[in-house]
Amino acid sequence: MARLLCDGTVELNGGVSVYSYGSAVGKMEGDGPLGACFDYIAKGAELGKETWEQAESTFQQYAFEIALKKGSFIKDDISFIFAGDLLNQCTGSAYGLRDTSLPFFGVYGACSTMAESLSLASLFADMRLGEYSAAITSSHFCSAERQFRFPINYGGVRTPTAQWTATASGCCIVGAADKPPFVKSFTTGKITDMGVKDANNMGAAMAGAAYDTIKRHFINTKTTLADYDAVFTGDLGQVGSDTLKELFERDNISIEGKHEDCGLMLYDREKQDVHAGGSGCGCSASVLCGHILPMIEKGELHRVLFAATGALMSTTSVQQGESIPGISHLLELSDN
Amino acid sequence: MARLLCDGTVELNGGVSVYSYGSAVGKMEGDGPLGACFDYIAKGAELGKETWEQAESTFQQYAFEIALKKGSFIKDDISFIFAGDLLNQCTGSAYGLRDTSLPFFGVYGACSTMAESLSLASLFADMRLGEYSAAITSSHFCSAERQFRFPINYGGVRTPTAQWTATASGCCIVGAADKPPFVKSFTTGKITDMGVKDANNMGAAMAGAAYDTIKRHFINTKTTLADYDAVFTGDLGQVGSDTLKELFERDNISIEGKHEDCGLMLYDREKQDVHAGGSGCGCSASVLCGHILPMIEKGELHRVLFAATGALMSTTSVQQGESIPGISHLLELSDN
Repeated sequence: MARLLCDGTVELNGGVSVYSYGSAVGKMEGDGPLGACFDYIAKGAELGKETWEQAESTFQQYAFEIALKKGSFIKDDISFIFAGDLLNQCTGSAYGLRDTSLPFFGVYGACSTMAESLSLASLFADMRLGEYSAAITSSHFCSAERQFRFPINYGGVRTPTAQWTATASGCCIVGAADKPPFVKSFTTGKITDMGVKDANNMGAAMAGAAYDTIKRHFINTKTTLADYDAVFTGDLGQVGSDTLKELFERDNISIEGKHEDCGLMLYDREKQDVHAGGSGCGCSASVLCGHILPMIEKGELHRVLFAATGALMSTTSVQQGESIPGISHLLELSDN
Repeated sequence: MARLLCDGTVELNGGVSVYSYGSAVGKMEGDGPLGACFDYIAKGAELGKETWEQAESTFQQYAFEIALKKGSFIKDDISFIFAGDLLNQCTGSAYGLRDTSLPFFGVYGACSTMAESLSLASLFADMRLGEYSAAITSSHFCSAERQFRFPINYGGVRTPTAQWTATASGCCIVGAADKPPFVKSFTTGKITDMGVKDANNMGAAMAGAAYDTIKRHFINTKTTLADYDAVFTGDLGQVGSDTLKELFERDNISIEGKHEDCGLMLYDREKQDVHAGGSGCGCSASVLCGHILPMIEKGELHRVLFAATGALMSTTSVQQGESIPGISHLLELSDN
């Protein structure tokens, strides 16, 4: 049974398995270095829909349907859905999952939403509140650009520190089962503000949150970096990854060789013009479901940390001169 | 230990108490019929802040601080916070609770957020994941008008079916304790779409969700309306309350005399120009924390349902011609 170790870290003892998972991405993500690992790659970003927002919702539907199919589930095998996204009032999820007619918890952790929703879904599985629960999230470059920056046809110039919102969705279906990957524990994020006010440098704004959560997880579980094969953050990009490295160096811990960032893994920054790397709820969600979970399932990774990161600002708060608070939710995943 | 009865209804058996609770409201809410019951009534809506958004965040801080104080807690007695609000990217909560440095789950259920956050906090209490968790939400008339409709100084005319966003916040601190009110169970909402496309008639859009959740709760717990002293919805307003009544009449159930709506309780519609009633996350939250919970604690109400309702649209989805999906999360509260 789940128990709180300390300060936001919950240990799960119920044999919680990420039984099934699905990923659906846009063309550009499919053209990237992880292209071969995604379940569905769209020919474009529209999916034949009238609006970018409808397309984003459809990516969520695809990821959910793929995860259901891969697990030989029907929709009604799912007891609870935990979902959220970056769109105002989380409409990507509300419209995407409207027709499921399943008990629905809306969650919001900006680009950390996959880790937040998976934490709660895993807890429900650990407590046997239903057999299976689903965690779903998405982002879409065009709906995000329109909402947070400029309509894409405006052709605004991007700064080198800016990140590229991934057109992608991921879905995990979790339940008690003797099948890796397993969710061993999670550490819930705290809102952390480093005083960064530049909305084009969200990686730096989120690095402090990732550092806080990863460090708390080490302390609360009495583990060190040496106990893990890898630590995946998402999505710090290049600037945030450099900051995270520096923060750990102050503790005399070198994360080099162990740390990878989903925002840096999704695209080929030499060939694809994504500046500091990828971002968006769908970025870490698709890298988790397309790359990390399969590697654990095959035994190529044994024990990893997945620390998704989110920037909790809005266009209004940035225009009002507020700094950008970050949050990072973490899960420990293993093959046994 | 918590168990899933059926179809989204979770029974709590751990003696979960709403140990402490606080409410903070604006002047207009203080002038309403429930004015005497709130813990803090502001002289205006600004709270001396530079922006409406900062004022909304400050209302959350006040509600949290009041709930802490009333329970003789210090901040670090709280193991997890569950919070959300109507502002884009839930910034009311992110900035309001930024300085708590506590593990934080962002949730989004539009105006049903109080019930959603309280469901999850109660579950954590039932599982003894920490001693106490907090559920917090807020809304602010001026920040909501600017975001969803027009800046208030524009002086736009409101339709008769429109609702008035409450300037208010509520906070519940839950834990295992032998002290009423108790949380006995919750039923998680499903996204329900009645095809309503008028963003000035959200009550009608949400009534179907309230009907679905309340009816499921009756079926899953094998209870009827007769088993409860009252069913509180929030915030259907007049139009939505009439629709809910009609929906139950089709099942030959008369909810009259048992049903009250937080949106109709908060204001005096004869004297206060709120059209169809109040709304906003803070509406049902402040009525819960100011009125319902104290009545249960005093034994004036023994067993009630609190079914908060939310409309899951955004301005973008409405402009794109989408209908408005609703959701309603429900808690069963009792004095023993």
